Amino acid sequence: MALVLSSYDQLCQAARDVALVNGATHVLGWDQETYMPPKGITHRSRILAHLSGLAHERLTSKRFQGLLEKAEDEVSVAEEHSVAKANVKLFRWKVDRAVRIPKRLVEQQSAAISLGQAAWAKARGESDFAGFAPHLQKLVEISREMAGRISDGAEPFDVLLDEHERDITANDVEALFNSLRPSLVKIARAAVERSEREAPPMKALLGSCPIAKQQQLNREVAESVGFDFDAGRIDTTTHPFCSGFGPGDVRLTTRYDERDFLSSLFGVLHEAGHGMYEQGLPEEEWGLPSGTAVSLGIHESQSRFWENHVGRSRAFWERWFPRAQSLFPHLKKLTLEQFLLGVNRAEFSFIRVEADEATYDLHIMLRFAIERKLFNGTLKVSEVPDAWNAEFESSFGRTPPDDARGCLQDIHWSMGGFGYFPTYTLGNLNAAQLFKAAVKNAGIKKAVANAEYAPLLKWLQTNVHAAGSVLSPKDLMIAATGKATDTAPYLAHLKKRFVDGV
Amino acid sequence: MALVLSSYDQLCQAARDVALVNGATHVLGWDQETYMPPKGITHRSRILAHLSGLAHERLTSKRFQGLLEKAEDEVSVAEEHSVAKANVKLFRWKVDRAVRIPKRLVEQQSAAISLGQAAWAKARGESDFAGFAPHLQKLVEISREMAGRISDGAEPFDVLLDEHERDITANDVEALFNSLRPSLVKIARAAVERSEREAPPMKALLGSCPIAKQQQLNREVAESVGFDFDAGRIDTTTHPFCSGFGPGDVRLTTRYDERDFLSSLFGVLHEAGHGMYEQGLPEEEWGLPSGTAVSLGIHESQSRFWENHVGRSRAFWERWFPRAQSLFPHLKKLTLEQFLLGVNRAEFSFIRVEADEATYDLHIMLRFAIERKLFNGTLKVSEVPDAWNAEFESSFGRTPPDDARGCLQDIHWSMGGFGYFPTYTLGNLNAAQLFKAAVKNAGIKKAVANAEYAPLLKWLQTNVHAAGSVLSPKDLMIAATGKATDTAPYLAHLKKRFVDGV
Repeated sequence: MALVLSSYDQLCQAARDVALVNGATHVLGWDQETYMPPKGITHRSRILAHLSGLAHERLTSKRFQGLLEKAEDEVSVAEEHSVAKANVKLFRWKVDRAVRIPKRLVEQQSAAISLGQAAWAKARGESDFAGFAPHLQKLVEISREMAGRISDGAEPFDVLLDEHERDITANDVEALFNSLRPSLVKIARAAVERSEREAPPMKALLGSCPIAKQQQLNREVAESVGFDFDAGRIDTTTHPFCSGFGPGDVRLTTRYDERDFLSSLFGVLHEAGHGMYEQGLPEEEWGLPSGTAVSLGIHESQSRFWENHVGRSRAFWERWFPRAQSLFPHLKKLTLEQFLLGVNRAEFSFIRVEADEATYDLHIMLRFAIERKLFNGTLKVSEVPDAWNAEFESSFGRTPPDDARGCLQDIHWSMGGFGYFPTYTLGNLNAAQLFKAAVKNAGIKKAVANAEYAPLLKWLQTNVHAAGSVLSPKDLMIAATGKATDTAPYLAHLKKRFVDGV
Repeated sequence: MALVLSSYDQLCQAARDVALVNGATHVLGWDQETYMPPKGITHRSRILAHLSGLAHERLTSKRFQGLLEKAEDEVSVAEEHSVAKANVKLFRWKVDRAVRIPKRLVEQQSAAISLGQAAWAKARGESDFAGFAPHLQKLVEISREMAGRISDGAEPFDVLLDEHERDITANDVEALFNSLRPSLVKIARAAVERSEREAPPMKALLGSCPIAKQQQLNREVAESVGFDFDAGRIDTTTHPFCSGFGPGDVRLTTRYDERDFLSSLFGVLHEAGHGMYEQGLPEEEWGLPSGTAVSLGIHESQSRFWENHVGRSRAFWERWFPRAQSLFPHLKKLTLEQFLLGVNRAEFSFIRVEADEATYDLHIMLRFAIERKLFNGTLKVSEVPDAWNAEFESSFGRTPPDDARGCLQDIHWSMGGFGYFPTYTLGNLNAAQLFKAAVKNAGIKKAVANAEYAPLLKWLQTNVHAAGSVLSPKDLMIAATGKATDTAPYLAHLKKRFVDGV
C-alpha cells in the first residue's frame, strides 16, 4: 500500500534520521542499566540529554514541518487506512506535541531521568524515599510543565496518558477501573482464600536454584515460545525491561532469586512477550509509525499473553515441569497439581511485579490514583509514602513494611514514566481477549494444548505485530478479535483459573 | 592556563557537542563487539554511519569554521604552550583534514567498518581470506581516497600515519625500523636460543585455568596497578581492546584460554595500561584536545609499560606468583625462576598479540611493509596472503599454517586502521624510555621493587596523562624523560631481560 510520493518519502527519510538517533539512545539507556560502571553516570546523562535534544530539534525543525505539510497534501488522496496516510497522521500528532515543548525541557528531562534512575536504584536499595524525593519532584515538575504546554485545557494526566495510549482519558480509565473493581475484588478474595486452603505453602516451591541453571531454563523456554536469540539477548538488571534498538536487536533483562527460579522465568516470559512484538514489527518499515509498536496497552498485552495465558497454564507446565524438576530437584517432592496451584497462588503481596494475576490490577489502580493526584496538585511528593501506604491498606488490608516494598518499588517514575501504569491493566484485558480469539482456531488450540507455540506466535505476528501503528489500538483490537477492549474475557479467565480450577 | 575568550569558549562548546556524539559512537562500537546479537549488525551499521556523518558535518560546518577563525585571532596573543593555543591549533588540524572529506565518504567508511568487522570475525574464525577480501578492498579504497583528498602531494601512507601519530612520515618510520632491525634480530635470535636452552617447555605453564578464576586474578591485578573499576569494567571479545567513552567510563576487553591464564592476564594488563591513560586524562577538559590522549604511540607506551615493564618483571611475580599458584595449582611444580623464564620465553610465533617482547617488533615491521605497499599500489589485496607469508618466512623462518594465523589475525584493517601498526613499536620505545625515567626516582624504584604501583601510576598521571594533547608526542617525551623518542632504553631493556637475565 506504500505510495511513491516525493515529499512523503523525504519525510520518511527525515523520520528515520530521528529514529537512528533514538536507536543510539536506546543502546546507551540499556547499557546504563546493565553494564555501565557507577562513575559513568554523569557523562552518560550528558550524552543522553544531547541525543534527546537532537532528536527533538529535528522533529520540530522547519524542514520536517514543511515536509509534513506537503506530505499531508499528498496523502489526502490516498485510501483510508493506507500506510502512508496513517504514518502522516501520526507524524502530525508527534510534531504537534513536540513543537510545544522547548528543546531545553527535553534535555532537562533526559538529564533528570539519567540522574533519577541512579538515585532511585540507590534509594530503593536503602529504602530511603528522601534520597529519591527531590528527583521525583523534579521529574513531576518537568512532566507537568510538558503536559501544560501540550494540553488545550485538558487535565494534565490526560496528556500524559495520551503519550502511551491513544484516545483514552483519565476519566475513561477511572470509569473502566470502577467497573472492574467490584468483580476483581471478589475474585481476588476468593482466589486468596482458595490458595490458603489448597495451594502448597510458598516455601514448598523454593529451593536451591543456581543462576546458571535458571539461565539455561529461561533460554530454553524463551526459544521454545519463539524469541529469536540471533536478534536478541537476556541480561541482568534490578528492574526487568525490554528495549528494542531496531531491526535485529531486542534486549530483554531479568533478575534472579537463587531460591526461586519462577521469579526470573516469568520475568523472561513477560519481557520475551514484549521482545517478540518488537521482533515481529515489519523490518522494512523501521523508524516509521508503521514499523513501531502502537501503544503500551497493546505492548503489555503481548507480555501478559506469554507470561500468564501461556506461562501459567496447565499445558505449558505439563511440558516444562519435568525439565524444571531435573534442573531443580527440590521440585520432585511436588505433584504437577500442587505445583500449578503454587504457580497460580494468589495472595495480597507488596510487590507489583511479583503479584499474581488475581491481585495485580489492584496494584495498578493504587498507582493510578496516586499519580492522578500528584498531577492534579492534590498530593505533594513528600506525601507519596503515606498516601501509598493508606491506599495499600485499603486495598490489601496490610501496610508495606518499608518504602522499598512500597512507593519505591517501581522504576517508572524515575524514568519520567507517568501515565504509564494504567496501560498494564489495559494490557491484561487485551491479552485475555486476544488469547481467546487466537484459540478459536482449532489448529492453534491443539498446538497450545501440546505446548507448541509457533502457530500462536504466527497468529500474533499476523494480527498484532504486522500492523505496526497503522491501526489505532481500538481498531487493532476490533480487527483481531471482533470487538474493542472489553472486560469480559479477562474476568472469565481469572474466574476460571483462580476460582473454578487451574 | 585556560583563557576566558568568548569565541574560544563557544568553539569548545561546539567541539563538546561533537564529542558527545562520538561518545555515543564508542558505546555502540563497544556493544557491537561485546554483546550485540548477530542480526543486529545491519541496523547497528546504519546508526554508526549516521552518527559518524553527523560528527563530521558539525566539525566541517560553517559555524564551527567561523568560530575557529575567531578563536585563532583570540589565542594569537596567548602564551606559547597555553591550553587554549594548543586546542585551537589541534582543532585547525582536525578541521583542515575534515573539510577535505565529503560526509558521504565518512558514512561509507563507517558502514564499511561495521560490516568489515563482522566479516573479519567470521573470516578469521574460518581462516577464509576470500570472505574478508572484498571488505578489505573497500576499506583500502576508502582510506586511499581520503588520504588522496587530504594530502598535498604527500605519500598516502604519510597521511594515514598522521591520523595516529603527529609529525612522523613513512620514511621516518622506515629509517627508524632500519636502524632498529639489526640489533632486534640479534637480540631475538639470542633470546630464542636461550629460551630453548633454559626456559621450561611452554606446556609446563599450561593447566586447568577456569575462566572465573582467571577473572578473579585479572581483577585483583588490574586493581592493584590502579585501574578504577568504579569507572570501568572488563568484558570478553575476540580481539582485546580498550574504549574510553568519556570521564568515568572506560571499557577493557580480553579473551580467555582455559589452559593458559597468562593470555588473558597480559591482555588485561595491556588494556588496563590504555585504560588508566584514559582514566588519567583531565576530566574538566573532556571533549577537547587538552582532555584527549595525544597519539597512539603514547597510548601504546602506556599499555606496554604495564604489560611488559611491570607485568613481566621479577618484582611483579615475586608478589603475584604465589597467588597464581593458589588459583592454578599446576603452577606449584614450577619455581619462580622457571616461571619467569617461561613468562619471558622468546620464540618465533605466528600471532602478534601473543608474541614476546623480543620478537614483537618484527611482526610490526612486516605489517608496515605490507600496508605501505598496499597504499603505494604495489600490492593488491588479493596478493596480501602470499606477501604476508613471504615476509613472515624471511623474518621468522617459518610460514603461517593458515591465514587465521597469518594476515587475518589482526582486527585493525577491518576497522580501517591503516597506518596504525608502526605506533606499536613507537609505544615500545616510549614505554622503555618512560619506565627508565620514572624509576630514576628512588621512592618509585623502591615501591616498584615491592610491587607497589601507586607512585608509578602517579608519575605517569603527572608526566603523561595530565597533558592531554597539549604537548606534542615529541615535546611530551622530552618533558617527561629529557629526550625525544630514542631506541637505546628499549634495546637495553630487551638485552637485559632476554640475553643477560630476567
